Amino acid sequence: MDRLEPPNPTFCFIGVIHTPWLAQEGTPIQPSKGRDVHGTVEVYPEYSPGLQDLEGFDRIWLIYWFHRAGPSRLTVTPYLDSVPRGLFATRAPTRPNPIGLSSVALDKIEGNILHIRDVDILDGTPLLDIKPHVPEFDHYSIQHCGWLDDIRFDTKSGRADNRFDE
Amino acid sequence: MDRLEPPNPTFCFIGVIHTPWLAQEGTPIQPSKGRDVHGTVEVYPEYSPGLQDLEGFDRIWLIYWFHRAGPSRLTVTPYLDSVPRGLFATRAPTRPNPIGLSSVALDKIEGNILHIRDVDILDGTPLLDIKPHVPEFDHYSIQHCGWLDDIRFDTKSGRADNRFDE
Repeated sequence: MDRLEPPNPTFCFIGVIHTPWLAQEGTPIQPSKGRDVHGTVEVYPEYSPGLQDLEGFDRIWLIYWFHRAGPSRLTVTPYLDSVPRGLFATRAPTRPNPIGLSSVALDKIEGNILHIRDVDILDGTPLLDIKPHVPEFDHYSIQHCGWLDDIRFDTKSGRADNRFDE
Repeated sequence: MDRLEPPNPTFCFIGVIHTPWLAQEGTPIQPSKGRDVHGTVEVYPEYSPGLQDLEGFDRIWLIYWFHRAGPSRLTVTPYLDSVPRGLFATRAPTRPNPIGLSSVALDKIEGNILHIRDVDILDGTPLLDIKPHVPEFDHYSIQHCGWLDDIRFDTKSGRADNRFDE
């Protein structure tokens, strides 16, 4: 089959995410481990019209650039395990395209500033997209989660270390 | 605050998604409206090592490029409504960064080919990333979904038309 060769897409930053997390080490590895951690999303003013109607959604997906992740690695030992795993079976940031995905709670919007909660994102992270988190679109019955089935997530600290730093 | 100015990131395609959907018109607008529609993800061979351990996850997130969406529009009338809405309060493809997000069922993996189900993605769509869909990371209690609270999603056909075509 034909390869989709160049041009590869260039994306723009539509804003920046401000959080209390200044280093990978100690940062929650998922929003569910960063409960009640507050942050803000600064959407650049030219994109503000796109925020209309967003208030009223309890949660939003932030799609962002892992700007401080090291180079891509196709095998990683994830935070919750001690066994090397295929990268795409993990949420590690050292991806071929370092795109992050987090569901955060949306508390309010003031102008182009979104006040968010449940934040697992490093301070200064560049923003690529915002989507509403809609259970009818995004929640499914899931019985099996591969290697994670053997992990008791609730007993883990759920904090990062520096293994994926640049 | 300082703007995150160039360089903007350039992403690579890690594969291509093959589906029965040849045109936007008639394509399910979400995976939950494309139940039991089958497709495949062809991951380019150099990324195959990253697929290790992925089988065993019931569902995966596909992050992809809306390669056939028209130019960015910050106000859109979404498929499920007749009122113009802010783009970021919708899942419309005409985004500043045309990044799509879908949870699909993963049936099996053969080499670098993923057999998927519940497909709402156009044939030939370039793939940017694959992540495991993990309820502990991705499912939250959500009471309010803004303008969508007034929409009876289950009574809608949930099929696209050509309003967002290039």
